[in-house]
Amino acid sequence: MKEISALMGYRPSIHVVDATLRDGGLVNDFYFTDDFVKALYRANIKAGVDYMEFGYKASKEMFDENKFGKWKFCKDEHIREIVGDNDTDLKIAVMADVGRCDYKQDIINRIDSPIDLIRVATYLTTIPGAVAMIEDAKNKGYEVSCNIMAISNTQESDLRIALDTLGQTPVDVLYIVDSFGALYPEQIARITDIYMEFAEKYNKKIGIHAHNNQQLAFANTIEAVGDGVDWLDATYASMGRGAGNCAMELLLGLLRNPKYHIYPVIQFIEKHMNKLREDGIVWGYDLQYLMTGILNQHPRTAIQFTKERRQDYTEFYKEIIAQD
Amino acid sequence: MKEISALMGYRPSIHVVDATLRDGGLVNDFYFTDDFVKALYRANIKAGVDYMEFGYKASKEMFDENKFGKWKFCKDEHIREIVGDNDTDLKIAVMADVGRCDYKQDIINRIDSPIDLIRVATYLTTIPGAVAMIEDAKNKGYEVSCNIMAISNTQESDLRIALDTLGQTPVDVLYIVDSFGALYPEQIARITDIYMEFAEKYNKKIGIHAHNNQQLAFANTIEAVGDGVDWLDATYASMGRGAGNCAMELLLGLLRNPKYHIYPVIQFIEKHMNKLREDGIVWGYDLQYLMTGILNQHPRTAIQFTKERRQDYTEFYKEIIAQD
Repeated sequence: MKEISALMGYRPSIHVVDATLRDGGLVNDFYFTDDFVKALYRANIKAGVDYMEFGYKASKEMFDENKFGKWKFCKDEHIREIVGDNDTDLKIAVMADVGRCDYKQDIINRIDSPIDLIRVATYLTTIPGAVAMIEDAKNKGYEVSCNIMAISNTQESDLRIALDTLGQTPVDVLYIVDSFGALYPEQIARITDIYMEFAEKYNKKIGIHAHNNQQLAFANTIEAVGDGVDWLDATYASMGRGAGNCAMELLLGLLRNPKYHIYPVIQFIEKHMNKLREDGIVWGYDLQYLMTGILNQHPRTAIQFTKERRQDYTEFYKEIIAQD
Repeated sequence: MKEISALMGYRPSIHVVDATLRDGGLVNDFYFTDDFVKALYRANIKAGVDYMEFGYKASKEMFDENKFGKWKFCKDEHIREIVGDNDTDLKIAVMADVGRCDYKQDIINRIDSPIDLIRVATYLTTIPGAVAMIEDAKNKGYEVSCNIMAISNTQESDLRIALDTLGQTPVDVLYIVDSFGALYPEQIARITDIYMEFAEKYNKKIGIHAHNNQQLAFANTIEAVGDGVDWLDATYASMGRGAGNCAMELLLGLLRNPKYHIYPVIQFIEKHMNKLREDGIVWGYDLQYLMTGILNQHPRTAIQFTKERRQDYTEFYKEIIAQD
């Protein structure tokens, strides 16, 4: 926290991205009702959120449409059924994973689509694939961001090469993604410094997508804001894979730009998010996610532990520290 | 976060204080079983925790012994029943509130007591009372700390006067207490700077006691560590008033001193803390606590909301923003 967040004022360059359907969809296999999605769309508009991510543009060759809700595929016509012509200030985003989408055919020209922003998600090992997707999306007229996932277990020298490569593409925003919820604010500050170096060199914006394994998703987002990061991902009631994400209600409680309003977020959570929990959908901070976070591991073992409704945390701990 | 926390190393001057019985006792009126307390004592020893706070030395004139568990009063003989002669590295602490204890008679000489540390809790309005208690406890041979509560709604100039006054007493540790869970890490950094000024002038140590209304208890503790704070309060599974405290399991996951061990904490939570929840004891982050945190209010309205098992968060929000 470098005391540049100007907590009493605000930076107009801040953008808030609601990732509830996309990261939350990883919890319930994207089975959200249309009522839920429409209400979330309206809540985001009222709350002043800048972008709403509807889900993934996943390959229908690789993934069975009968085994997931429609927001794993985010067909343009399905988005249209929610947003119509989207004559609002809220922009529409989807995510597309390198190697797990058919972007050439599934992403059409922006002028014919309700979508505004393509969020390319990549690992450090698939940067050339990300570059191709970024160029494709830009040629089709979209705003484009690139999420570099799982950076907590990469070499900083590799990260620099990736950022230098991506900097030379027409991408608009480069995202810091703490996929494992492993990073402390001090580490976020150092990583932001690296991103900032290339953002300044290539005139890009920086975003952050945090996970809550150590109850640090909000704190790491605050740290990043203080360090100059402008694009902030959040989800209602923290809904997201495993321990979930930075909570929208926490983030809007921090931001001082009068365009943002927390009340519609509280309304939506009261009416819709708590019902999801009552229906048995489970996400959020718990010991198993803390452990994978501390150990800088992918949370898949913890997600499995959760699915099996296990409570033997000590056994789980012994299992995962033995993963050589 | 001033990059002085040396995350890869450790500061031997760090002390961890387990406040589970004391702050957690505010949730269940101090009705912990002896089995629970004994197991917690053993867990703290194994985990390398430095101090275990057993509860309050509350006035038996003001509070009815039949309406609270025994740890609201922390009679020396009750502590002895748990710790015997306490021939361990774990030290024993109790809290005493200015104006709500009979310290002259209830706190005996340290040489005759199992207690090592008296934690004097005060508001800014009762500093002279705190000074008297500090001097009494020191004269009786104790280590003494002083918690200045509710600093998030005080004037910094008043805080400076209080710190200058307390600095001239024989107190060992001055605590930053974010009673309302209202503070962001950036604000903790500024407050720590003020404390540090007087700590250096008077050769005192600084501690932090955080609340989790905005999921920042751990983050604020990390920030404080980075800024030079050495005494860190935590509770198992965050158990504490309202949204709870900095979680012991998060804190020990951060600290690199090999004397600390997270495994006994996980063991204790698995066996004892989750049972408390199953028994209907409710604490931890929820929207109502977020709201009082953001609004910098005492959480008593949110605690009442929780007790009544209300779910109408929007109504609650409208109630508390209207408190003029």
